Amino acid sequence: MKKFLNTAESFLPDALAGLAAAHPELRVDLDTGTVVRSDAPTEGRVALVSGGGSGHEPLHTGFVGAGMLDAACPGEIFTSPVPDQMLSAATAVNSGAGVLFVVKNYTGDVLNFEMAADLASEEGIEVQSVLVNDDVAVEDSTFTAGRRGTGATLFVEKIAGAAAARGDDLASVAEIGRRVNAASRSFAVALTACTTPSAGRPGFDLPEDEIEVGVGIHGEPGRSREKLRPANEIAADVLEIILNDHDLASGDEAIVMVNGLGGTPLSELYLVYGEVSSLLAKRGITIVRRLVGDYVTSLDMAGCSITVCRAEEPFLALWDAPVNTPALRWGV
Amino acid sequence: MKKFLNTAESFLPDALAGLAAAHPELRVDLDTGTVVRSDAPTEGRVALVSGGGSGHEPLHTGFVGAGMLDAACPGEIFTSPVPDQMLSAATAVNSGAGVLFVVKNYTGDVLNFEMAADLASEEGIEVQSVLVNDDVAVEDSTFTAGRRGTGATLFVEKIAGAAAARGDDLASVAEIGRRVNAASRSFAVALTACTTPSAGRPGFDLPEDEIEVGVGIHGEPGRSREKLRPANEIAADVLEIILNDHDLASGDEAIVMVNGLGGTPLSELYLVYGEVSSLLAKRGITIVRRLVGDYVTSLDMAGCSITVCRAEEPFLALWDAPVNTPALRWGV
Repeated sequence: MKKFLNTAESFLPDALAGLAAAHPELRVDLDTGTVVRSDAPTEGRVALVSGGGSGHEPLHTGFVGAGMLDAACPGEIFTSPVPDQMLSAATAVNSGAGVLFVVKNYTGDVLNFEMAADLASEEGIEVQSVLVNDDVAVEDSTFTAGRRGTGATLFVEKIAGAAAARGDDLASVAEIGRRVNAASRSFAVALTACTTPSAGRPGFDLPEDEIEVGVGIHGEPGRSREKLRPANEIAADVLEIILNDHDLASGDEAIVMVNGLGGTPLSELYLVYGEVSSLLAKRGITIVRRLVGDYVTSLDMAGCSITVCRAEEPFLALWDAPVNTPALRWGV
Repeated sequence: MKKFLNTAESFLPDALAGLAAAHPELRVDLDTGTVVRSDAPTEGRVALVSGGGSGHEPLHTGFVGAGMLDAACPGEIFTSPVPDQMLSAATAVNSGAGVLFVVKNYTGDVLNFEMAADLASEEGIEVQSVLVNDDVAVEDSTFTAGRRGTGATLFVEKIAGAAAARGDDLASVAEIGRRVNAASRSFAVALTACTTPSAGRPGFDLPEDEIEVGVGIHGEPGRSREKLRPANEIAADVLEIILNDHDLASGDEAIVMVNGLGGTPLSELYLVYGEVSSLLAKRGITIVRRLVGDYVTSLDMAGCSITVCRAEEPFLALWDAPVNTPALRWGV
């Protein structure tokens, strides 16, 4: 294993210490396991809390800031955070207007966020949750009943975060978050496996000429092992799968993300985006906003995911609203 | 070789087509090999042009936009662009106030930018150049006489770009670019080699327990092959080398970049940043601004570089000035 780390055990706290040093606008608390906007809570505004296993950076810690998350709870690598982390975060950010939990659909995360919601309710904090389950690759997988939550998490956090920032109430913010998830589909392809610091070796074996089609963000198996093909064929296959599961039609507008899984150069992601853009144009679907880069990663995995979200009203205005976080920033 | 590409031959044009599709605010011209702000030229303002071999994305194409570059000339992977590209770019962006070439110190780039400057002069375009040679690893290397130009290129492009944006004349913009280079030092460590699409295999062999200390951005040899060590020791060694070559002293302020080479997860870069931050604090040096992420890469190479720039007057105000490019954006 070749990584920049001190010890496998201290990897997460050491990385969070670096995040804290780089971003004085965040309160990184290693004791409670939370990353909170240092100006939290904001009086009278709904607060967003997300979290999950670490190893997917910048998700979620890099999305804490104005217009997006109020707090993130980083679990150990590929391991759900515990309810106490979520409760600490909710307590730190609640201004009385309530807290929205954004939860990726993995069994541990779902159970722990539910328990945290109960604990928060007992303390008088109103909580609602949005479950993200956009990954159309497989039903029921390692760690998951139902579909996995992946790239659309960023879309939910950005768009619901903007709704909270403009002063929507908790029910409305939750509703828009659920609508974003319902309007989004994702699918990922791995060229290589990733290596966690604790395991010290790749999570699965993948021959030099094969790809994992439909891979999960922890390296969970996808739909099939296939031979490596040209990027335009891979992009066409992935879009076919996504659109077969979506009711996007000619004339529709979409927000699209081509997301690197951590080990793939930006030039390859742009190349894939070019193919996706051409293929959607041929179907009469217009990409009105896009992200190309590493946003929801799997440590050092080479590969990419594609997320397509229908740009329903009022998603676009909320997408364009100012955001000021370590990993996503515009309008400020 | 596992990459998202159609053919090795079409890799660069396909990636640039994707860039064009993602960024309608850029004019990507495959015929002239240029990426130009679509609102160029800006009347009465000095324009910045940079370029070099591709494979270091987002450098340089991702830094074209308001407050930074007016145009970039992407060469083939790890190959200098040709003088005609630079001349096309200079012609497209010159408003009569002159053009600054930002040139990384590699023999091919230097010769070709010199030839382009001569050609531009013949066409009545006033040109000055800033040579970036911040990499303290080695004197004279593959492709280079003198020191290599690496991470400080971003600093020169950002700070000189802001000087041009506020209306400084050509001599002043060039002068500030040269001062930024003189105030900056960089050093890189590779954990793995990178693979170019045309070669199809890693550029060098590196045993599973060794690192290349002082590696160049094309995988050129560094100072030594060493055993992999804990990140805090690597960071300490790299800073020692950088500061031995710099006159930074206790009480000084610095702008620092911990830059991923393409295949290294963000969490590891933050971990390294945490070590750098602690080590500089112990020397009484205050980091006043920082970047942590992939900015000057080497395709899929795992590794990172550290750049330290003394925050002399007026660098900080120019650093903070608005910038609106695909890869660097704030204040807008």
